[in-house]
Amino acid sequence: MTTALTTLNSVNLGALGSLVKTIQDEPTKGDTTWKASTTWDGGFRTTTTIRDFTPYATDEPAGLGGDDSAPNPVEQLIGALGACLAIGYSANATVAGIQIDELRVDVEGELNLETFLGLSDGNAGYETLRATVHIKTDADEAAVTELHNKVVATSPVGHTLSRVVPLTIELA
Amino acid sequence: MTTALTTLNSVNLGALGSLVKTIQDEPTKGDTTWKASTTWDGGFRTTTTIRDFTPYATDEPAGLGGDDSAPNPVEQLIGALGACLAIGYSANATVAGIQIDELRVDVEGELNLETFLGLSDGNAGYETLRATVHIKTDADEAAVTELHNKVVATSPVGHTLSRVVPLTIELA
Repeated sequence: MTTALTTLNSVNLGALGSLVKTIQDEPTKGDTTWKASTTWDGGFRTTTTIRDFTPYATDEPAGLGGDDSAPNPVEQLIGALGACLAIGYSANATVAGIQIDELRVDVEGELNLETFLGLSDGNAGYETLRATVHIKTDADEAAVTELHNKVVATSPVGHTLSRVVPLTIELA
Repeated sequence: MTTALTTLNSVNLGALGSLVKTIQDEPTKGDTTWKASTTWDGGFRTTTTIRDFTPYATDEPAGLGGDDSAPNPVEQLIGALGACLAIGYSANATVAGIQIDELRVDVEGELNLETFLGLSDGNAGYETLRATVHIKTDADEAAVTELHNKVVATSPVGHTLSRVVPLTIELA
């Protein structure tokens, strides 16, 4: 049974279990810090570096004054939500013994450009966000609904977006 | 003077100006919709597609049960903030006639893993976020401070993170 569980959905349940035990024994181990560094490349082009991974580009569409060479920040922001939900589904499905055959998360959101462009003093950010989960699994509807509710209740990116995060932006 | 302005910081001010005029003439043109789609690849590996750009990967570190093959969602989330602030700096500096020689934005944030791991019912998202802007420019301190304040007041990703966004997550 242990063997079957650790290979379900190709998820490494052993590592997750070790982390849970570590944090249960010493709760401060649950406190984590995450970092990203973005360098400006001219125009609206930037490069973001995270740990030792290959840096990736961000830009704006031509209509917004960019060179349209890469996704823009508000797209990458909601891409992070889709990835977070997919990972949450994979983790919680595996713990519940549910095999996922296919999974896709589509995210979209509405944003008014007036504040970004200096035409008003309102909200420059997303007005609304919607994520739609497409899952293919043999699990019954009740199990999938329970899985969904668990993912929504525990999503780091979902919680970040749906709450007020104390955000400090300062000049070095 | 127009020529000098449109080449400052390699920013296409003409495109931004056209967009501003379009929205002033017809405010509903400021309403935009942005999309991202994430496909699960097994384990905690996912691929996110935005418009026609090359899809990019997300994963989790080994300690969190992933294969550590790419940044994770909470890192990509704050990377989007850094990119957004850098673009905001570039746009607003150019409008103000300020030449940017170098610009880097570092973002970091604290997040407690207990909720994500199902050990508590609290906040799974970031507790705090800090962005630090490193700019090299000949502009005087007052001009840079004014620029900074304008960027903070108009950042789409900054506003999204520091406000409650109505977020719907549903099964297809």
